Amino acid sequence: MKHKIYVVGIGPGSEEMMSVQAIRILEECDVIVGYPVYLNLLKERFGHKEFLSTPMRQEAERCLLCFAEAGKGKKTALVCSGDAGVYGMASLMYEIGGAYPDCELVIIPGITAANSGAAVLGAPLNHDYCVISLSDLLTPWEKIEKRLRAAAEGDFCIALYNPASHKRADYLKKACEILLEVLEEERACGFVENIGREGTKVTVCSLKELSDAQVNMFTTVFIGNSQTERREDKLITKRGYRL
Amino acid sequence: MKHKIYVVGIGPGSEEMMSVQAIRILEECDVIVGYPVYLNLLKERFGHKEFLSTPMRQEAERCLLCFAEAGKGKKTALVCSGDAGVYGMASLMYEIGGAYPDCELVIIPGITAANSGAAVLGAPLNHDYCVISLSDLLTPWEKIEKRLRAAAEGDFCIALYNPASHKRADYLKKACEILLEVLEEERACGFVENIGREGTKVTVCSLKELSDAQVNMFTTVFIGNSQTERREDKLITKRGYRL
Repeated sequence: MKHKIYVVGIGPGSEEMMSVQAIRILEECDVIVGYPVYLNLLKERFGHKEFLSTPMRQEAERCLLCFAEAGKGKKTALVCSGDAGVYGMASLMYEIGGAYPDCELVIIPGITAANSGAAVLGAPLNHDYCVISLSDLLTPWEKIEKRLRAAAEGDFCIALYNPASHKRADYLKKACEILLEVLEEERACGFVENIGREGTKVTVCSLKELSDAQVNMFTTVFIGNSQTERREDKLITKRGYRL
Repeated sequence: MKHKIYVVGIGPGSEEMMSVQAIRILEECDVIVGYPVYLNLLKERFGHKEFLSTPMRQEAERCLLCFAEAGKGKKTALVCSGDAGVYGMASLMYEIGGAYPDCELVIIPGITAANSGAAVLGAPLNHDYCVISLSDLLTPWEKIEKRLRAAAEGDFCIALYNPASHKRADYLKKACEILLEVLEEERACGFVENIGREGTKVTVCSLKELSDAQVNMFTTVFIGNSQTERREDKLITKRGYRL
């Protein structure tokens, strides 16, 4: 029988927003592997488990740790924030897993920031939507620009991940400038910081205002489609019901 | 104090895939309102609650039921499959809720089929992705076509909801023909039926094969981006790590 390795999406951070399945699987595991920030979120409930981590940018090493632990016969889970398959480690685990035919991967989905953040803002993604990361660590910026243009041309609602970091302070501004080639300055937008954790903060604004907004790597940004309306601190994307 | 109404995403169907928060809130409610199929999924655990429903196409009436029950002082939840804000009832509740200033809406996110289905297939959405519904009940088909083209031009991974119904038997074929104007016939695709329920069924195929696939309204369809690979019954979208 193959060793199963679980790649588990833990949602935005609080235990309340994990699935029953994710909690059960972490309870059953011997070893939980993850980026230190996420392991920290799990400390209270799962602190009795063996925790293993590698620093940022050592994602491949983190995956290798999982295969090594599973190979020892330990029941192993790799945790990701949000969903394991949305900018998460699922695909890298499959890539590396090709060399470990004695292991089988099981992906446990979680609530990704597009959806948990949307809930805080009301209903900004309540029609066809795109999820785009502004991080150019693994993706050429030209490709990100192309996707932003396509999303605007297609009149999609948009959720932006990784809108900024220390090295990429002006990326949201650059993204807004591209969107403004197609969309109007007044397009309804918003952003949410620290979703599902203490200090959740919501801002609703126009696309023009968004381009000067202060965001960080814990912010998820939302851009409405042509049917999205602002109402106080909410964004509501109408589906087209006749009322 | 305002009456709170909870709009709750219950995920794909099994209790295992609900969030802890969603279960807690339904436990605390007096009345659960929903489409009959979803209420049925909740019968085992929440059968002691008052269940209220309206048939398909009577979504506005279902929302009105919620405001009426909350107005009587009953703690009320409206349930949606998947996420409440992804083709769910969140936005319609806000639209109708404008007339009920004594009620406050609280949106509880859930795992939407794009993400729960992706988990079954491995990692098909592991980069920027679009979610598009093929239902033209509330959206003109021309708009759907435009979005399909934009998604293909932008090299997004794509999840398609509502790929078929009795009246729209050939919509997936029509959608594939549009995608094939831009994408190659061999593009890696797949689809999942009955996610998270008994009888989950996975198929991996080419885009050309997808255009002749038999799907129904419980199927979620996935189209890979240029970096997506097929491996047995999995779809893996590489993020670009150098290994």
